[in-house]
Amino acid sequence: MPAADELEAVLEANRSFYDAFEARDLDAMSQLWEHSDRATCTHPGWPTLRGWARVAASFFALFQNDQRLQFILTEVYGQMDGDVGWVSLDENVLDVDAGLAVAAMNLFTRGDDDEWRMVAHHASVITAPATLDDEDQG
Amino acid sequence: MPAADELEAVLEANRSFYDAFEARDLDAMSQLWEHSDRATCTHPGWPTLRGWARVAASFFALFQNDQRLQFILTEVYGQMDGDVGWVSLDENVLDVDAGLAVAAMNLFTRGDDDEWRMVAHHASVITAPATLDDEDQG
Repeated sequence: MPAADELEAVLEANRSFYDAFEARDLDAMSQLWEHSDRATCTHPGWPTLRGWARVAASFFALFQNDQRLQFILTEVYGQMDGDVGWVSLDENVLDVDAGLAVAAMNLFTRGDDDEWRMVAHHASVITAPATLDDEDQG
Repeated sequence: MPAADELEAVLEANRSFYDAFEARDLDAMSQLWEHSDRATCTHPGWPTLRGWARVAASFFALFQNDQRLQFILTEVYGQMDGDVGWVSLDENVLDVDAGLAVAAMNLFTRGDDDEWRMVAHHASVITAPATLDDEDQG
């Protein structure tokens, strides 16, 4: 498979994460994640949850909530090397009455079945303006 | 090289990052990082800095500061797959009069010279207690 197609598969897995999040679809979220001890998830401000059981429990709890989130993804940069892909991006999170800028790093690995699965998600609210070369930050 | 040694090399690169940070050693920090456009660094609360030039500028600015930081690293979990390694950990950051709990994800790639270089650092202050299964959180 050409490299561009491989990277597209990583970006597609990345989009699946936000689709599942917006739809509060626990099955889709479960299908996306690697079910292993090394799965880690850091929601904004949270301690890192380690292991699929804890990660799954966090999404179960979040999806119980009535609040609907919408993610506008910007500055999406995907990379890959062998069977590992990672995506750095900004999540512009919209709920009913507010918006929030969140920086995120998502990590995926490709299994023997050629499927990309999420193995790490780290998201953090952007609270400080860039103090360096703001004029270059697009 | 056996897998255990390879993973140890990833963890050693991870320690080098904090050694360089504590020593405010820009040369060591520069040596550790991949000098590429895909290098990304998210300091706690900051927007993601993309590209080595911006990442380097951030450390240059941070190291100008008189404040000395000390990092006590806990819950350090390293993983690798091919030429990519990643470390999930907690940074317990001490300065003169306070402490701060920070969740971090560090990503490394192995170059043709067999050296591991940092390609992504994402750190975020832990502001919320784990709302799930706290009793299992060790």
